[in-house]
Amino acid sequence: MNIVEIINKKREKQQLTKEEIFYVINDYVAGKIEDYQMSSLLMAICLNGMNEDEVLFLTDAMYHSGESLDLSKISGIKVDKHSTGGVGDKTTLILGPLVASTGVKIAKMSGRGLGHTGGTIDKLESIPGFQTAMSLESFEQQVNDIHFALVGQMGNLVPADKKIYALRDVTGTVDSIPLIASSIMSKKLASGADKIVIDVKVGEGALVRTLEEARTLANLMVHIGKNANKEVICVLSNMDEPLGTHIGNSLEVEEAIEFLKGIYEKDVYELVMTLGTLMVQMGLQISEKEAKNLLIKNLENGKGYQKFEEFISRQGGNLERLEKAQKVFSVKSVKSGYINQIHTLKLGEIVRAIGAGRYQKEDSIDYGVGIVLSKKVGDFVLENEELLKIYVHEKDMEIGRILECFEIDVHYKEPTPLIYEIIK
Amino acid sequence: MNIVEIINKKREKQQLTKEEIFYVINDYVAGKIEDYQMSSLLMAICLNGMNEDEVLFLTDAMYHSGESLDLSKISGIKVDKHSTGGVGDKTTLILGPLVASTGVKIAKMSGRGLGHTGGTIDKLESIPGFQTAMSLESFEQQVNDIHFALVGQMGNLVPADKKIYALRDVTGTVDSIPLIASSIMSKKLASGADKIVIDVKVGEGALVRTLEEARTLANLMVHIGKNANKEVICVLSNMDEPLGTHIGNSLEVEEAIEFLKGIYEKDVYELVMTLGTLMVQMGLQISEKEAKNLLIKNLENGKGYQKFEEFISRQGGNLERLEKAQKVFSVKSVKSGYINQIHTLKLGEIVRAIGAGRYQKEDSIDYGVGIVLSKKVGDFVLENEELLKIYVHEKDMEIGRILECFEIDVHYKEPTPLIYEIIK
Repeated sequence: MNIVEIINKKREKQQLTKEEIFYVINDYVAGKIEDYQMSSLLMAICLNGMNEDEVLFLTDAMYHSGESLDLSKISGIKVDKHSTGGVGDKTTLILGPLVASTGVKIAKMSGRGLGHTGGTIDKLESIPGFQTAMSLESFEQQVNDIHFALVGQMGNLVPADKKIYALRDVTGTVDSIPLIASSIMSKKLASGADKIVIDVKVGEGALVRTLEEARTLANLMVHIGKNANKEVICVLSNMDEPLGTHIGNSLEVEEAIEFLKGIYEKDVYELVMTLGTLMVQMGLQISEKEAKNLLIKNLENGKGYQKFEEFISRQGGNLERLEKAQKVFSVKSVKSGYINQIHTLKLGEIVRAIGAGRYQKEDSIDYGVGIVLSKKVGDFVLENEELLKIYVHEKDMEIGRILECFEIDVHYKEPTPLIYEIIK
Repeated sequence: MNIVEIINKKREKQQLTKEEIFYVINDYVAGKIEDYQMSSLLMAICLNGMNEDEVLFLTDAMYHSGESLDLSKISGIKVDKHSTGGVGDKTTLILGPLVASTGVKIAKMSGRGLGHTGGTIDKLESIPGFQTAMSLESFEQQVNDIHFALVGQMGNLVPADKKIYALRDVTGTVDSIPLIASSIMSKKLASGADKIVIDVKVGEGALVRTLEEARTLANLMVHIGKNANKEVICVLSNMDEPLGTHIGNSLEVEEAIEFLKGIYEKDVYELVMTLGTLMVQMGLQISEKEAKNLLIKNLENGKGYQKFEEFISRQGGNLERLEKAQKVFSVKSVKSGYINQIHTLKLGEIVRAIGAGRYQKEDSIDYGVGIVLSKKVGDFVLENEELLKIYVHEKDMEIGRILECFEIDVHYKEPTPLIYEIIK
């Protein structure tokens, strides 16, 4: 087999065979196919697509490129939750303990990512002392004991995805449904969970911009799951504005804690309840109503927050000393009106620029910086009223760039719904 | 400016600006843009195209990436001839001396290439002693003295094309009209000729497969020429069968010599006359009829061949000792009928496989190997009659693979014309 012939085939819109896809993935991981050949093929896939069979083969090839976690020593059904990533998305920090408090087992591996803020692992590492590395034995033990553990990389899972993802990031080939689906699903298959809820973010601040693309991606992932005997349910949710109010690493931990203590934004609540109900249904095999009631009960009686504290302390974290940047600026509106839109991507880029996210894998993260919104889409704001607080270390902030993220008008515009649909 | 944003733009089918294109070319040559980023952009260009303006900017950026030849010390009009490359194309070896013998000045730089046989330079180097490297002064002197010189690389012309071409070759991004046009024209602009005839090969054995694509390419090159005040004329010619009978390096030199001595195949004669007439018209500023008569005269009176000998001996070559592989196999037809098609690409690949061409830039070439056709498309062949002779060093030849290249049928099929059209 020859990589140039395979690239030519995909350039000519032909279907690649299972053998060709396995050859590409194996030889790329082995360093026998060059980065510049892989990136050319990836661009051809971005532009000419892949059919369902090709995506199944690709997922399978990536899944088999490394080890996979054997969680059989954890008894019962293991449920996982994944988000395609959005600005201000702290739902894992809330859902992990809350769902675990109902008895569902969550053995979760999470990443760092190159987003506007760090990944879940980075957010947790903003808690002093919190350990994200542990042995498989401790991991299994913790899930059996307290039903929830969250670790960073464990074992050499899906090396193909690591190598390909790093390449996609610098070659303009991130934006491809087949590549996104196979990247997510190969990792999910390797991480050993039995049932998976995936939050597919749709909108300006997300990997997927349109509802139609999100549906294609969701159906593809459900299909890949079925093929591997894993139940996958996708929730298509709105990412036209940041989720909740806090964007940043320790700031998002703070919002998660507030949530579990009963103080929450409407949108975060709705998303947590939707995803959480599905996770509890899957994990305990009960009805939707029963699952939802359990979640509401454990949120109200504080069991969710207790589980959060138990989880943090079990992994060595100290919640007393959450880091926060000391300079706080209040950004005020220059006019009165309804906030009809927040340019989420632009706002996310600003948060990344002040240090909350990475540009390169090697970049370090400034845990304490970020933004806290005082107003959300649909809210009315008065001239000179606060739109947001920004936590930074530097003195100078380009307030103009932040104000450009808000579309304010005298006419009220109905916000788009938070949950578009559920695909299973 | 940011390469990932530029890749994204082209992926989204947007037009790149002059500044973006110059940035890409300059930073790629300077090593600031990685191969894997360039190949991703090249694939996006292959699939989403470029408009006329973008191709002009790209050609200009590549042309300006290095030095350009100043041929002002050669008096009068300098005419150049280029071929997009085909199997058995030895026209430069014939046209150079024949056209020069009429008084036209040809100061030609030529390449090695990665085709089924070597490039013109390789073919000439199959002549013992022939020198393809010389100083600019000797080059100018030779053209002023005998009207014809042919050298390999001189100066650091169009380094961008060298780097990009090498990358395209291994990333499945050769097949793109904008990339082909800018690659050819940047080199032609840098090599200092005033007027250029380009033989655009069309068909199975060529870079361009359809007449429609060939027209687009030709119009684009004529347009680039006009924009740079260079007269460019394109001849669209058939590459559905090998040109002439000989394929290989020294074998093609042999056919060129036979031609200049008056023994020639119909197709080579037609192509040489078409291209040569245009070159003489351009160079001497005379009518088509006068130009053609001059060529016929100098072919008949032997002045063309004299010029060939003069040229070879001036550059140190010794025609007495032309190398040829010692093993010759006769390949015979297994049935009787008309030859309706020769699979040119497949046959070319066989010639490359026996050593006549390169797979990698570093590969050495076996000058003496190749094929000599005994039959051409349209000919009738009897069972057990010779189709071709193959010159090799190895003992075993896969005769089956060669026979597969010939479509033989009892029904006669009218061959396609050799010259499709002329675009100026």
